[in-house]
Amino acid sequence: MTRFRLTVEFDGRPFMGWQRQAHGPSVQQAIETAVTAVTGEAAVVHAAGRTDAGVHATAMVAHVDVARPITPFRLMEALNARLRPAPVAILACAEVADDWHARFSCLGRRYVYRIVDRRAPLTLERGRAWRVPPPLDAEAMHAAAQRLVGQHDFTTFRSAHCQAESPVKTLDRLAVRRVEGGIAVEAAARSFLHHQVRSMVGCLALVGRGQWREADLVAALAAADRAALGLNAPPDGLYFVEARYPEAAPSGAGAEDRPPAG
Amino acid sequence: MTRFRLTVEFDGRPFMGWQRQAHGPSVQQAIETAVTAVTGEAAVVHAAGRTDAGVHATAMVAHVDVARPITPFRLMEALNARLRPAPVAILACAEVADDWHARFSCLGRRYVYRIVDRRAPLTLERGRAWRVPPPLDAEAMHAAAQRLVGQHDFTTFRSAHCQAESPVKTLDRLAVRRVEGGIAVEAAARSFLHHQVRSMVGCLALVGRGQWREADLVAALAAADRAALGLNAPPDGLYFVEARYPEAAPSGAGAEDRPPAG
Repeated sequence: MTRFRLTVEFDGRPFMGWQRQAHGPSVQQAIETAVTAVTGEAAVVHAAGRTDAGVHATAMVAHVDVARPITPFRLMEALNARLRPAPVAILACAEVADDWHARFSCLGRRYVYRIVDRRAPLTLERGRAWRVPPPLDAEAMHAAAQRLVGQHDFTTFRSAHCQAESPVKTLDRLAVRRVEGGIAVEAAARSFLHHQVRSMVGCLALVGRGQWREADLVAALAAADRAALGLNAPPDGLYFVEARYPEAAPSGAGAEDRPPAG
Repeated sequence: MTRFRLTVEFDGRPFMGWQRQAHGPSVQQAIETAVTAVTGEAAVVHAAGRTDAGVHATAMVAHVDVARPITPFRLMEALNARLRPAPVAILACAEVADDWHARFSCLGRRYVYRIVDRRAPLTLERGRAWRVPPPLDAEAMHAAAQRLVGQHDFTTFRSAHCQAESPVKTLDRLAVRRVEGGIAVEAAARSFLHHQVRSMVGCLALVGRGQWREADLVAALAAADRAALGLNAPPDGLYFVEARYPEAAPSGAGAEDRPPAG
C-alpha cells in the first residue's frame, strides 16, 4: 500500500461541496470514482478541509491509499484523464509516509475570499467572486479585521451545523487588501469553524460599506451568539488556497510529480 | 436623439461572437434586444471590435443612439437588468457627440491573451485561458515577439475570412510576460486583421516550447502566406481590454455613469 498526497484544484460551482453526499455530486466522490477507475480498488480520499457547495480550491490537499504499484506521475496523469469533464484537476502528486494524514497532519489552512465592488453584474467572474456595490473602504475593513485575530470564541461566526467540539479558535491572520478588480480577504488559522470565513467576510463588508463600525464587529464577536451575525457572505468568492504541513512530510522515493526529463 | 458610449464586459463562451448572427446568440444581439426592451426603439449597436466566438472582453467599447430622453446612469442600470442572465454587463455609459463612432473614432485597440502553462487540465480557468504544457520560455517568446512589432504584411497571421482591404498593419506593441499562474501576451495596434492576435500567439507558443526559433517566426512573417502559419491559438485566452479614442470624446452634460451623490 502506498499513500499519495494530492494537490487538487476545483471549480466549486457544480458540486454540493467537498464531502460525499447522497443527494448530489461532490469533489470527493469525483476523485474517488477516478481512483477506482484507475486502480480497480475501492478508495477513500481524505482532505485538509471540507468545503461547502460553491466554494472553490486552488490547492486543496488530500490523500489516498493505493495497493497497486503506480508512480505518482502516472497516477496524477491517469486521474486527470478520468476526472474529465468535471472541473477538478490534480496539480501535484507525491508519495508520503503511511501515517501522514491530509487532515490530521495539517498545521494550518489558508483561504482567500474575493469581492468585486462594483454596480454592474458579474460576467467573467460570475460564481467566482461576491459582487458588492461600491464604494467599499478596504482600509476600514482591514483595521476592523484585526479585532478578530487571535484566540476567541467564534460562536457568532459559526454555522448552526458546525460539528466542531469547541467554538474557540485561534485566527492567525485576517488581511484585507485592494487587488485588481476588487478586494481580497486572506484568512489563516490552524483550523476554522463551519462558515467562519464567510461569516467574518460578510460582517467586514458591512464595515466596508459604513453600515457597521469597528465597534459593531467587536460587539458581535463578544456576543458569542449566531443571532449577532450581520451577514454571511455567499460561497462564490471563497477559495481554499493552502494547507500547511510539517516540512518533512512529502518525501520518499518517487515523489516526482513531473515527467522524467529527456 | 442622444448617442451613448457603452463600456461592455462579457464572457464570450456562450456567444457566436460579437456580431449579430442568424445561427446563434451574439453579444451585439443581446445588447440590442436589451436597448429595445428599455426604450421601445429599434437599436443598432456599433462596437470598436468584432470579436470571434469564445473571445471575451473586459472593456469593449460600443455606441447606440436613443431617441427617448434617458440619463446615462438610468440607461446603464436598465440595460444591466435586461441583459440578465446573459454574461454581458455595461460597466460605464456616457453621452457622446452625435458624430462620435465606437469603430471609426477608435485610435487604438488592445488585447490580452492568457496562457496557463501546466500539465493539468484547467478547472476554474476553463474557457478563459489556453493551457499549454510546460515549460514555456516567456523571455524567448518576448524576444521573438519584437520581430513582429512595426509595419508588416501580416498575411501569414490573417484568417482566410478576413475582410480587411489590406494585410499591411502596424503593430505597436507585442509584449510577453510571466504573470501569476501563467503568461500574458499584450497586443496593441490601431487595428488588427481577423485572427491576427490568435495567430501571433500560436506561433509565439511554438517559440516558447522550443519547437520554433526566432528565425522561424521571422520566416513565417516574410512568407506572407497563411500556409506558413505554425499554429492558431484557441479563442479561450483572448480578451479585448481597451479601445482608445481622442481625449475629448466622452464629454457633455449627463456624462455621469454613477448615481448622484447623497
